[in-house]
Amino acid sequence: MTAGFTGADLANLINEAAIAATRRNGLEVSFADFLAAIERIVAGIEKKSRVLSEDERRRVAYHEMGHALVAAALPGVDPVQKMSIIPRGIGALGYTMQRPTEERFLLTVQELKSRIAVLMGGRASERLIFDGNVSTGAADDLQRATEIAIEMVTKYGMDTTVGQRTYAPKPQAFLSAAQDTVVVAAEATGREIDLAVRKLIEEGDTCARQILERRRTELDAGVEVLIANETVTAEEFSPLRNATAPNAQAA
Amino acid sequence: MTAGFTGADLANLINEAAIAATRRNGLEVSFADFLAAIERIVAGIEKKSRVLSEDERRRVAYHEMGHALVAAALPGVDPVQKMSIIPRGIGALGYTMQRPTEERFLLTVQELKSRIAVLMGGRASERLIFDGNVSTGAADDLQRATEIAIEMVTKYGMDTTVGQRTYAPKPQAFLSAAQDTVVVAAEATGREIDLAVRKLIEEGDTCARQILERRRTELDAGVEVLIANETVTAEEFSPLRNATAPNAQAA
Amino acid sequence: MTAGFTGADLANLINEAAIAATRRNGLEVSFADFLAAIERIVAGIEKKSRVLSEDERRRVAYHEMGHALVAAALPGVDPVQKMSIIPRGIGALGYTMQRPTEERFLLTVQELKSRIAVLMGGRASERLIFDGNVSTGAADDLQRATEIAIEMVTKYGMDTTVGQRTYAPKPQAFLSAAQDTVVVAAEATGREIDLAVRKLIEEGDTCARQILERRRTELDAGVEVLIANETVTAEEFSPLRNATAPNAQAA
Amino acid sequence: MTAGFTGADLANLINEAAIAATRRNGLEVSFADFLAAIERIVAGIEKKSRVLSEDERRRVAYHEMGHALVAAALPGVDPVQKMSIIPRGIGALGYTMQRPTEERFLLTVQELKSRIAVLMGGRASERLIFDGNVSTGAADDLQRATEIAIEMVTKYGMDTTVGQRTYAPKPQAFLSAAQDTVVVAAEATGREIDLAVRKLIEEGDTCARQILERRRTELDAGVEVLIANETVTAEEFSPLRNATAPNAQAA
Amino acid sequence: MTAGFTGADLANLINEAAIAATRRNGLEVSFADFLAAIERIVAGIEKKSRVLSEDERRRVAYHEMGHALVAAALPGVDPVQKMSIIPRGIGALGYTMQRPTEERFLLTVQELKSRIAVLMGGRASERLIFDGNVSTGAADDLQRATEIAIEMVTKYGMDTTVGQRTYAPKPQAFLSAAQDTVVVAAEATGREIDLAVRKLIEEGDTCARQILERRRTELDAGVEVLIANETVTAEEFSPLRNATAPNAQAA
Amino acid sequence: MTAGFTGADLANLINEAAIAATRRNGLEVSFADFLAAIERIVAGIEKKSRVLSEDERRRVAYHEMGHALVAAALPGVDPVQKMSIIPRGIGALGYTMQRPTEERFLLTVQELKSRIAVLMGGRASERLIFDGNVSTGAADDLQRATEIAIEMVTKYGMDTTVGQRTYAPKPQAFLSAAQDTVVVAAEATGREIDLAVRKLIEEGDTCARQILERRRTELDAGVEVLIANETVTAEEFSPLRNATAPNAQAA
Repeated sequence: MTAGFTGADLANLINEAAIAATRRNGLEVSFADFLAAIERIVAGIEKKSRVLSEDERRRVAYHEMGHALVAAALPGVDPVQKMSIIPRGIGALGYTMQRPTEERFLLTVQELKSRIAVLMGGRASERLIFDGNVSTGAADDLQRATEIAIEMVTKYGMDTTVGQRTYAPKPQAFLSAAQDTVVVAAEATGREIDLAVRKLIEEGDTCARQILERRRTELDAGVEVLIANETVTAEEFSPLRNATAPNAQAA
Repeated sequence: MTAGFTGADLANLINEAAIAATRRNGLEVSFADFLAAIERIVAGIEKKSRVLSEDERRRVAYHEMGHALVAAALPGVDPVQKMSIIPRGIGALGYTMQRPTEERFLLTVQELKSRIAVLMGGRASERLIFDGNVSTGAADDLQRATEIAIEMVTKYGMDTTVGQRTYAPKPQAFLSAAQDTVVVAAEATGREIDLAVRKLIEEGDTCARQILERRRTELDAGVEVLIANETVTAEEFSPLRNATAPNAQAA
Repeated sequence: MTAGFTGADLANLINEAAIAATRRNGLEVSFADFLAAIERIVAGIEKKSRVLSEDERRRVAYHEMGHALVAAALPGVDPVQKMSIIPRGIGALGYTMQRPTEERFLLTVQELKSRIAVLMGGRASERLIFDGNVSTGAADDLQRATEIAIEMVTKYGMDTTVGQRTYAPKPQAFLSAAQDTVVVAAEATGREIDLAVRKLIEEGDTCARQILERRRTELDAGVEVLIANETVTAEEFSPLRNATAPNAQAA
Repeated sequence: MTAGFTGADLANLINEAAIAATRRNGLEVSFADFLAAIERIVAGIEKKSRVLSEDERRRVAYHEMGHALVAAALPGVDPVQKMSIIPRGIGALGYTMQRPTEERFLLTVQELKSRIAVLMGGRASERLIFDGNVSTGAADDLQRATEIAIEMVTKYGMDTTVGQRTYAPKPQAFLSAAQDTVVVAAEATGREIDLAVRKLIEEGDTCARQILERRRTELDAGVEVLIANETVTAEEFSPLRNATAPNAQAA
Repeated sequence: MTAGFTGADLANLINEAAIAATRRNGLEVSFADFLAAIERIVAGIEKKSRVLSEDERRRVAYHEMGHALVAAALPGVDPVQKMSIIPRGIGALGYTMQRPTEERFLLTVQELKSRIAVLMGGRASERLIFDGNVSTGAADDLQRATEIAIEMVTKYGMDTTVGQRTYAPKPQAFLSAAQDTVVVAAEATGREIDLAVRKLIEEGDTCARQILERRRTELDAGVEVLIANETVTAEEFSPLRNATAPNAQAA
Repeated sequence: MTAGFTGADLANLINEAAIAATRRNGLEVSFADFLAAIERIVAGIEKKSRVLSEDERRRVAYHEMGHALVAAALPGVDPVQKMSIIPRGIGALGYTMQRPTEERFLLTVQELKSRIAVLMGGRASERLIFDGNVSTGAADDLQRATEIAIEMVTKYGMDTTVGQRTYAPKPQAFLSAAQDTVVVAAEATGREIDLAVRKLIEEGDTCARQILERRRTELDAGVEVLIANETVTAEEFSPLRNATAPNAQAA
């Protein structure tokens, strides 16, 4: 359910790896410390006590495999490294970990659209498999896709109708933090922004759906593996490997 | 008038059960302590002094039996355990207690729609029996159904028109608490959200109405039992048992 | 100008009656203490110094008799006990006291509509008698009727167009108190709410008007008695007695 | 430019009269103290240093005489007692003092409309005489007429379209005082309120205009007297006396 | 770029003149002290270090001469006394000083319209001369013209469509000062206000433009004098003298 | 990515140059100190550790060369002095430094439009070269172009439809800083403002695009030089020299 690290995430990651090394009294930060730190950051501390029903595990598996296969199918997306359906942290029922192939300073329209498609992959998979009876499990994906789409439209000027200008965020309530995706514009312009955001997300959803319909066989096969093993890596399940990824053969 | 516990409710429940055990100087938390705690949480402390008129008791009975029979008719809804028309706490004139069959981590569109239908069951029953002359007793049901519908539309992306995006809640007034169901959107989009919420609640109401019309005989019979005995359990009145519930035969 | 007591009012009433008894060094709370407390609460402390003009007294009398005759004509409305046109407290030029026949826990659509009609009775009487030249004296009635109508529409889901959902009140300004009838909705929805509220009040006004036109003779007669005596009870003027009231013959 | 005292004004008046008596070491409050207090309150402390141009004095005289003749022509309006074009206080270039004939507890639609007409009389006179080239001198009149009209529409339910309901004032900004004429309503309803207010003021203006056109001779004559003498009383200039006033011959 | 003093300005002026006298150890406030004070207040302290390009000086000269010739052409406008294109203070690149001929207590529609026309004269001159390629130098003029127009429409009731009512200013943000020209009205009414303000400013601009086209020869001649001498008085350049001004020959 | 210094920038510049001189224990501020200060201010402290991919460097080069060639093609724009694609500071991946030819006190419509065109030159170049697949790198350019366009429309009255008036900025949230480009207007007027801003930016973009299409050969050639050398001056690459610039041969 994640689509890459920011620079701040990477800094945090190194710090977490050092903590993990210290905790095990290690002399140096091992690759295992590094992986544990990644998992800790991406999906929270493992919660072994949480027991999902069989139906829920199946749904989570399809959701995560949806993210992963969309990520594997799109050019310029960071390759999938590992997937898990062991519940972790608050609200994380499973996760898909992508390996950032290089530090990025610029993102293009196409790359941002691919990120939205990967985020919509989980829900698209649920819709495909469960005949439209989607679940609440995609809330975080939808929020992140919405944030990307709002920034594309109001900060990066990437919608033709709305135009190449920026929109100031609304004044934030005193001591409030999370409102930075709400913009100020005339009502008619605000409606254009809403429709542009909606269109970007619909396109991402359609893109994800088409990929998953084409790769239905791999989707079903991957879910079986994931349910059986609880975790899967790109090395264990080849359809997760992205032939178009920048350095898919690295690491 | 309730439709299941959250995790926090369950934690609270255990705490209350322990208090009940302490209060009676019990050596351990008995099943009776547990049941008392459930009742205390669900419907407040019993208020023996409150005397409803016969008309009001009849209306409350139809309202609660409406919730219960809708709950019993829908697949995937927690089974009804016990009903009461003994007034408790502030404003609770009766209640219907459902037993959560398992901890839930995900809820599907269908399950959320069923929850709305169960919440609308009380008012639908009143409308059916009292020829449209509904009462103020459904205010809490309507508020909870509204909250579920707003979240379905603005947080879980479950309305086709509004689309699979999230909407930021409005900045909250300083020191204010209860505003988290108000969203920010362009006016035309806000209207779409309002109409989507309205449609979800109307569908739940229609669903409840149809169930109660089909089960009118059980509705009338159940109300007579409830008025006579003040409390009814699923064991005492078989129509409360849900053949489709996940583990209807358990406990 | 009042339409019944709430539970809190009754608690306050008992307290006031005790104070009245203490003030006269009475050994126990007499029925006279009780009546004085009711008058004190309903209409404030008597102000003998305030002198209305003859025109104003006549208008106040028609206003109060309008409330009373509408109350007496509608089923399920608390019966009128006593009326007065002796000015009391701040702003109260007269009052109509209804006796609550029983504690109420639920109110139906019909009962709420009747309450609005009783509240509109004062203005409807003024309009009928003074050829449309109404006065500022109905301001409190209109505010209370508005509050009831807004709650019917936005809290109790009693308007078909607006639907069976609730609307969150607007965030309240810091330290502000009186804003709890202002709701948040999209503009088009807010307009529907405004029109629904308007319709409920118009219906109450029309209902009151029709009753007063039918009972014009009693209206004129009652006003003469009221002007002559300053106070009138249901025992002294029979049209105030409501044949349909739940226990009209009691007390 | 004033249209009567409120109760609070009267209390203030008595206080001011006592101060005036004390200031002159008088043994009791004389009628002269009383009159001085009225003038002080109505129009501020006399400012002899302020010198208006001839054009301005002429305009002020027509403005005040406009108020006065409209007041004298309408039934139920407090009679004019004294007029002055000696500038006083901050912003008051002249004033028209009406004598309240009796304490009022209720005001009818007709009386409120008459008050608006009297307030508009100053500007109507300017428009009539100066061929539409009105001045800034009517700002206070317009604000007071607006406040009356807004209350008629939103507090007293006196506009047919807007209906007999009240509208809550908008939440006031912290520590702010003067916003109590701003109401909350849906946009379409707010527009109805704006149009209703506009209509009430236009009607008052038309009413004032028609009176002044009919009494043009008295208007011109009165202005000559006022310019010559600086102050005029109803006893000195008979057209100021209102034959329809409640007790026009008293005092 | 200024159009007259307010009373407060005059009080400030006297104070500044006294300071100037003290600074030069003068025994009394001389006329030179007075003139220095006027210049100080109107245009800030002379800044000799600021060097404009030739193009900018030419533009500033046309801008100021535009103000001056419009002021000289309109009846009832204070006569121009002195002009300068020596930059002073923050942002003042030049100024036109008018001499108030008398203290004013009232301003008529025509006089307010003339003030707007004078304010628009600078920009109108730039547009005429530089073929529409106007500059940022008119920002203060536009703001002041806007303020006058907003007050005409919302405080003085001088627009026929908007009507003779006032509009409350919007609640001001805590500790904020400059918002007093923002009014509260329904959207449709707010749009009428915006259009009325726009029309008043367009009329002022058209008026200024027509005057300058008629007096193009004087405009060009005056600019040459101003560029050569840096300052010009009405005595030095006769077209600055207004034949229609109230007391154009005084002082 | 910058288009000139303000006066404050120049003051800051001198200060920075002095600091640079002090840091190297120089006896006086050398020209090298000055240049270092300019680079420090314009683009932040050099960050040698940041490594862009080849694709990103190419994109940055086209972006910066886009700014530079548009600047070189438009009359009245400050000439380009030096360009760099060495990443500096937070977020600056490259920059184009223009030399202000003279202190400016006034800016005309044409000059402001040229500034917008220069700001849009980076994105226009990306769109031209990468077939519409633009990047996030233009966010700062878009924000600055938006700010200029908003000021042209709402502060300098430079849009015909919106008119020659100013619009007050919205009240700023307490302790908030960045909201000064949000204006208050009726919705329909706000929409006009939004459309006017959009049009100004589209015109700037079209202007930039046309220049770059005409100068495609120089664009490609310049990018090769920039990629090879990392920095380029106007002396090294002649197309950067603007024949129309005020003093293009100076310095």
